[in-house]
Amino acid sequence: MAEDKLPARSENFSEWYNQLVQKAELADYAPVRGCMVVRPYGWGIWENMTAALDRRFKETGHVNAAFPTLIPMSFFEKEKEHVEGFAPELAVVTHGGGEKLEEPLVVRPTSETIIGYMYSRWIKSWRDLPMLINQWGSVLRWELRTRLFLRTAEFYWQEGHTAHSSSEEALEEMYRILDIYADFAINEVGIPVIKGRKSETEKFAGAVMSTSIEGMMQDKRALQCATSHYFGQNFAKPFNIQYLDRTNTLQFCETTSWGLSSRMIGALVMVHGDDQGLVIPPRVAPTQVVLIPIFKNDAEKLAVMEIAVRLFKELKDAGIRIKLDDREEVTPGFKYNDWEMRGVPLRIEIGPRDLEKQSVALARRDMPGREGKTFVPQAGLPAAVSAMLTEIQASLLRKATAFRDANIHEPRDYDELKKIVEDGWAYAWWCGSKECEAKVKEDTRATTRNIPLEPPGGGGRCIVCGNPADKKVYFARAY
Amino acid sequence: MAEDKLPARSENFSEWYNQLVQKAELADYAPVRGCMVVRPYGWGIWENMTAALDRRFKETGHVNAAFPTLIPMSFFEKEKEHVEGFAPELAVVTHGGGEKLEEPLVVRPTSETIIGYMYSRWIKSWRDLPMLINQWGSVLRWELRTRLFLRTAEFYWQEGHTAHSSSEEALEEMYRILDIYADFAINEVGIPVIKGRKSETEKFAGAVMSTSIEGMMQDKRALQCATSHYFGQNFAKPFNIQYLDRTNTLQFCETTSWGLSSRMIGALVMVHGDDQGLVIPPRVAPTQVVLIPIFKNDAEKLAVMEIAVRLFKELKDAGIRIKLDDREEVTPGFKYNDWEMRGVPLRIEIGPRDLEKQSVALARRDMPGREGKTFVPQAGLPAAVSAMLTEIQASLLRKATAFRDANIHEPRDYDELKKIVEDGWAYAWWCGSKECEAKVKEDTRATTRNIPLEPPGGGGRCIVCGNPADKKVYFARAY
Repeated sequence: MAEDKLPARSENFSEWYNQLVQKAELADYAPVRGCMVVRPYGWGIWENMTAALDRRFKETGHVNAAFPTLIPMSFFEKEKEHVEGFAPELAVVTHGGGEKLEEPLVVRPTSETIIGYMYSRWIKSWRDLPMLINQWGSVLRWELRTRLFLRTAEFYWQEGHTAHSSSEEALEEMYRILDIYADFAINEVGIPVIKGRKSETEKFAGAVMSTSIEGMMQDKRALQCATSHYFGQNFAKPFNIQYLDRTNTLQFCETTSWGLSSRMIGALVMVHGDDQGLVIPPRVAPTQVVLIPIFKNDAEKLAVMEIAVRLFKELKDAGIRIKLDDREEVTPGFKYNDWEMRGVPLRIEIGPRDLEKQSVALARRDMPGREGKTFVPQAGLPAAVSAMLTEIQASLLRKATAFRDANIHEPRDYDELKKIVEDGWAYAWWCGSKECEAKVKEDTRATTRNIPLEPPGGGGRCIVCGNPADKKVYFARAY
Repeated sequence: MAEDKLPARSENFSEWYNQLVQKAELADYAPVRGCMVVRPYGWGIWENMTAALDRRFKETGHVNAAFPTLIPMSFFEKEKEHVEGFAPELAVVTHGGGEKLEEPLVVRPTSETIIGYMYSRWIKSWRDLPMLINQWGSVLRWELRTRLFLRTAEFYWQEGHTAHSSSEEALEEMYRILDIYADFAINEVGIPVIKGRKSETEKFAGAVMSTSIEGMMQDKRALQCATSHYFGQNFAKPFNIQYLDRTNTLQFCETTSWGLSSRMIGALVMVHGDDQGLVIPPRVAPTQVVLIPIFKNDAEKLAVMEIAVRLFKELKDAGIRIKLDDREEVTPGFKYNDWEMRGVPLRIEIGPRDLEKQSVALARRDMPGREGKTFVPQAGLPAAVSAMLTEIQASLLRKATAFRDANIHEPRDYDELKKIVEDGWAYAWWCGSKECEAKVKEDTRATTRNIPLEPPGGGGRCIVCGNPADKKVYFARAY
């Protein structure tokens, strides 16, 4: 398929994305409306993301568990905002084992309710707190207008659910996780996300406070990459999550939840990809390096393959995720295009001339053409390749950061805001009212993304109504 | 909870199991009929199992992917035996997004059908073969009589699905996986399973041939620990999984599937546990070592904790999964019982006298009392502990193997077979007929477990009907 050219991003970003995700075999549409299949190459990225996040969760004291996929419908009805938020998106099991069920079950859209129920059974005393459990799995929210990774009925994610003895501790947890998400997005996926608090309109159904990390895609639309919520006692009360404190008094817990999904793969595509295809940051790339032997006849093949195989082993032993592409039914040129489309960060070429010079050619995916090509000695190749991968990782983040910063503007008035959000993000003072937020959305289709955690200092006038404002917010069109 | 005594295995094995699984916090019943919650300690075992198996799958060229949880009902109807096998166990989604669905969807009980459908789209030519995809996740088979890990409606597993260009290659894959399962069960979980072929009656719905690994529990009942199936073209034909061969001729693929589930945790409990609680093989233990400091006053505490913390760090840095239990609200004796019940393979005790001698006490979980206690120098502790963990792992396997071998008998006649299966396994000649198999089941509740892959040589007479027989089979009561 590598010969079919992708549309240019500048011509049709949306179509470029849709074609690329399928062409690179990241995902495919399933024969179930709204669902996707994550193919091995896409799942390979998700496995690397999973490992990087899971390590961070465990380092901060979290453990994993598994809760049922099906949840009794009545559980959703216990928290008013929660059921209002999720009711329209539920898939409902009405029959099991050939019989109609007494109570319908719901395929989980999120697990606050069933985990809350279990917490109420497990938590007895202050000794059981904090309870810090995460779950890796999938959830289902009925969606008909779907886009692979960005919006599908079923998607893959982790959902953390924690219970604490004080609001301070629960808030601290919410912020700790937000920091983990930001660190992960920035340092593993190369996406310079912005941390902040969601507006009342945009917060999670049932939360006291929601926070998010937001990334800028190359079409300058925002993508919410993950969220971390503080619930206060909103779930503890209906689900009766209580503990005996050190004075033997029964208290309600304070809870949080937080999630990051396979949407992050969509973000990776839209932040780093180019007109040739994917560009995958080395730290999450299933294949970091592809080694391509070049030869014209059997004698050359014999000589080249001997060295290629040796170098392949050296690099693999050094812990580099490498593939040796020794297919003979396609040309090296075809292979270059194919692996470029798939976003492998670094290509190594080795041909007869390289043998003489005892060198190889390195071609960086993030710098197409001559600029990204260097020749390095075969001796000490693993160290040179590791250094190059580190540099590519850093370079992708620098580039994305420069792009983001060049496309965030501070409007002086409402008219300017309207212009800015056509092709960028506006960072502006906001009075905090739902009316002003709604007006911007109606006029421009831009929504509030988040309110940075560090107060801007001073004060200003709301960009919409002109009333005094003590916070600034990002307005952008979002996925 | 550690103070409530478990029933003895000899008195009530079933109740011992049920209480232990909950008391050790491996799993709990969910508020959804037939479903379980796998708690962090149980999930920690599953994560170690997962990692050990996944490594083996990847080393043999398999990749992971994710297919939808929901499958159109019509997919099941394409393969006759498959639908007959699974129809009574299906959970059915009839409503989504507030509306009745045109076609009901099924919560997957297994994924041959939807993966077959995707394979028919992805596989075009011999170049795409073999396709070797595995999926980690959960499936749901409606069950009302449940036992945690052993039989629940939803359970956790991996399911591999592969497509090949020849029956030889597909059969080779089925056997390769069976070998991986056996290697995993024996060397990671310490369960000396027996590999073999399932009878026609016991094979998977839709398979040409099924194989299994079977383990003996301490009540001498058999537990099928994993299965690997060869489908021939039974799924390729209804799902149209075809490829162009090297001569450009369209051919049907040959497919396999294979699965191992969280049932393996139940097997671990029932093979290694004792009347004090769990005994977890070190290679899959979430916590391999617990370090318990002993002191009576603040001065002792200060001195002991200094060394305890240093040793803890040394052991942790050496890659040993260790916990330091520095709780002060409970006694060391309580801690011993608590960690014994949870099956931590090795306990390290350190008290004031150990400081003087610059030693620590090691107490093996698999050898209660003085016999399992040794004193070793603090210097070089990580190496001593690693060696001890290796010895515990080997010892558990030896013990389970001796137990298994002592409880498999070869009956001389049918009456003896009936006696044997009351309290062991019978290994006997069998003519292969369904009638003889059914008679044994009716008379004794024992079923054929599997037919070992190595032919026994020679021949004999069927233990049931006396007709000539060329194979021997294990008969046992099974979970």
